[in-house]
Amino acid sequence: MFERLPASIQVVEVGPRDGLQNEAATISTADKLRLIEALAQAGLSQIEITSFVSPKWIPQLADGPELAKQVMQDPALAGVNTSALVPNLKGYEGAKTAGLKQINLFMSASESHSKRNINKSISEALATMAEVAAVAKADGKRVRCYVSTVFACPYEGKIEPQASVDICKKLLAMGVDEISLGDTIGAATPNQVTTLIAMLSKEMSLSKLALHFHDTRGTALANVVAGIESGITIFDASVGGLGGCPYAPGASGNLATEDLIYMLDGMGIKTGVDLEKLTNAGVLAQEILGRTLPGRYLKARLAERAQTCKQ
Amino acid sequence: MFERLPASIQVVEVGPRDGLQNEAATISTADKLRLIEALAQAGLSQIEITSFVSPKWIPQLADGPELAKQVMQDPALAGVNTSALVPNLKGYEGAKTAGLKQINLFMSASESHSKRNINKSISEALATMAEVAAVAKADGKRVRCYVSTVFACPYEGKIEPQASVDICKKLLAMGVDEISLGDTIGAATPNQVTTLIAMLSKEMSLSKLALHFHDTRGTALANVVAGIESGITIFDASVGGLGGCPYAPGASGNLATEDLIYMLDGMGIKTGVDLEKLTNAGVLAQEILGRTLPGRYLKARLAERAQTCKQ
Repeated sequence: MFERLPASIQVVEVGPRDGLQNEAATISTADKLRLIEALAQAGLSQIEITSFVSPKWIPQLADGPELAKQVMQDPALAGVNTSALVPNLKGYEGAKTAGLKQINLFMSASESHSKRNINKSISEALATMAEVAAVAKADGKRVRCYVSTVFACPYEGKIEPQASVDICKKLLAMGVDEISLGDTIGAATPNQVTTLIAMLSKEMSLSKLALHFHDTRGTALANVVAGIESGITIFDASVGGLGGCPYAPGASGNLATEDLIYMLDGMGIKTGVDLEKLTNAGVLAQEILGRTLPGRYLKARLAERAQTCKQ
Repeated sequence: MFERLPASIQVVEVGPRDGLQNEAATISTADKLRLIEALAQAGLSQIEITSFVSPKWIPQLADGPELAKQVMQDPALAGVNTSALVPNLKGYEGAKTAGLKQINLFMSASESHSKRNINKSISEALATMAEVAAVAKADGKRVRCYVSTVFACPYEGKIEPQASVDICKKLLAMGVDEISLGDTIGAATPNQVTTLIAMLSKEMSLSKLALHFHDTRGTALANVVAGIESGITIFDASVGGLGGCPYAPGASGNLATEDLIYMLDGMGIKTGVDLEKLTNAGVLAQEILGRTLPGRYLKARLAERAQTCKQ
């Protein structure tokens, strides 16, 4: 184990979109921009900033067009690849108008989740992906696609890995640049990760694949280790573990970026992220939201800082 | 990875001792017994029930002699190996009087932590271990020894793995039956685990070694995976993640037993523990303590149960 660790890993920060979309509180555009700046300041070079989904569906991100415009004009974010989620051609046009260089599509590996989440079958969703990806690639955009519930679905239980293999092949054939495979309800265990990645590696290069874990049952970093050992070098995470899972209220959601960076730092794997500055971004996120976030490293580090102040 | 997974893993439940010793609230002996019974009911066959440390040091466990007596007379616990922590010969005599078949000693791999925690150097601590172990083994008792701060110390930072190798060799030479290597402040990353276990495996059989992780920075299950891959088959855990770390207030402490069992179940590794019954034990622990415990699976499962009730 750990005989061929990668020299570096790409961390994709999804907190400003995947995290904030589940918040009850209304966050101002100015606060969102401050958080994105703090994340960039910490060294995160890939940040998903918002969504161009209809405000009827996700009112929390209704300021997506305005935020994206401000982000693209912000000199502090000049070197950062800021992207946004888009559900269809209309959303894509919004992201294009704002000048974003990357758009992120989404679909599900589970038929039931796909129907419930976006009211489309998997093949209908793939048709939309193809349509948007073709236009975006013709415009010279980078295209990422999230595939959710690749390990388990809240309605169907375990999902066969072959479903994700089939979807990934189709997405790559469309010219999608990166695919993020999501454990949406945080149910995966490390052996499922190695099984899925082994199957995928027989059909495609792993360099375009990312893993997106939730820490709902504490297994996120164990799954990251399994992913690294299987050859994956891109992982999604969310500042402070921001982002709940709507199907398990009270449960923790996304893998916390600080927990991921702490582990990778310890393993000697470069990420370009400064953990102290990232902790500061976590503090800012907590201030903006007015509550404690579930990330474990963040809690532990803030307790250490408080203790140092007392001494 | 995962080409040679063990068929089964021994889980050692330390919640009633390691967890409750840090609680501010006074828990009645009757409640402690109920919790131990619920843990046994879930299938945990190794449970550390209390400590025979002076009540001046740990007033929370001052009822150790009485609790141990009741445990040994409890028909519901007849098939369970219930053990207690003992610091010295006086503590050992108490555990012997109660009829316990296993005693657990403790020391540290860090000189500074040893001095601060038990006011002894490592070699002085080893002398005490030898003294108590000799008497206990002559009495036919099973002897476990905790070695804490094997990866990092709150005063010294990183601890060289060679320190633990030297200590383990000395403990095994004393006839100690099992050694639990503890990441006391929850700072280890998986690569440190594989490095330490590889060094130990050159000097001794791994069958007598256990790993004891804290989830302070979210790495506990990742470290368990590294431990399993390295050949370790005994892991400590605490119901609900009960037990804080005094050096990081507010941070989470022990690896939650439910999180560990969830992952091992998913990996097809037998533990003899029923996760639903264990969740019930977690609910009882929360009721007794009057607060929510940090374990992630417990939170997620209780949210699922609440949702099922509503439907």
